[in-house]
Amino acid sequence: MTTDTGTTGGEAEIRALIEERVRAIGAKDVEALLSHQAPEVVSFDALDPLRYVGSAQVRRRAEEWLSWYQGPVGYEVRDLAVTAGETVAFCHYLYRVTGTMTNGTRVDMWVRATVCFRKDGGRWTITHEHTSVPFDAESGRASVGLEP
Amino acid sequence: MTTDTGTTGGEAEIRALIEERVRAIGAKDVEALLSHQAPEVVSFDALDPLRYVGSAQVRRRAEEWLSWYQGPVGYEVRDLAVTAGETVAFCHYLYRVTGTMTNGTRVDMWVRATVCFRKDGGRWTITHEHTSVPFDAESGRASVGLEP
Repeated sequence: MTTDTGTTGGEAEIRALIEERVRAIGAKDVEALLSHQAPEVVSFDALDPLRYVGSAQVRRRAEEWLSWYQGPVGYEVRDLAVTAGETVAFCHYLYRVTGTMTNGTRVDMWVRATVCFRKDGGRWTITHEHTSVPFDAESGRASVGLEP
Repeated sequence: MTTDTGTTGGEAEIRALIEERVRAIGAKDVEALLSHQAPEVVSFDALDPLRYVGSAQVRRRAEEWLSWYQGPVGYEVRDLAVTAGETVAFCHYLYRVTGTMTNGTRVDMWVRATVCFRKDGGRWTITHEHTSVPFDAESGRASVGLEP
């Protein structure tokens, strides 16, 4: 949400958190990446299973995901849209993840992301995340080759 | 979010909107289904493409989706979690969609959903939706057979 005078405080804070996320993934810094997760976070990930519940499960998943890559992981954010109230906020964006996996596979894929926040003790925490790619109804295959 | 005295007003309102959605899908009532969409809604759908932008695109997609089914469409919601502030809210849940398509294919699939709201003129409107199934990294196939 914007006002006549520009970006609201909450919107600027959420944008800063997403910028921090990009830096954390680029540096494979799991601590920084997860520093805003609420203990009760529910994550719908692009890969199986249906969901991860709680920060311990989300941490294991993040560690596993980053360990799949040799060298740096690219995470380019596009079309970030933020809606922030006083105590509740959400944002959505597309991101392009790039890198080379330890088995040599080259990854270059656009993914959709939604991140939802609650302000606890004056601090924004992530209580829900949803990342995915769509699938093709006819083939049943995940559409990992789409571009915005 | 709940208080000591129970559900907040915003949470109850969002829960009512999701109940209305279930009824609308069961009745294949596109008008009711879309009556809370903001003009600028951005939808990340379970099927291609990457996104739908604006209520006109979302309407065409909803009409197409419901037209695929002969007879009723089941939409069973599980684990609905709502976070509502004064002007911004979000919720997430799993849903089981069931029915028979016009080509005879039987659908029975669990899907993840995130719905995000903003209060405009005293009325909650949906500005963002994200529905998906995860995929299996090894096969590249959408995981349409998972159960919670």
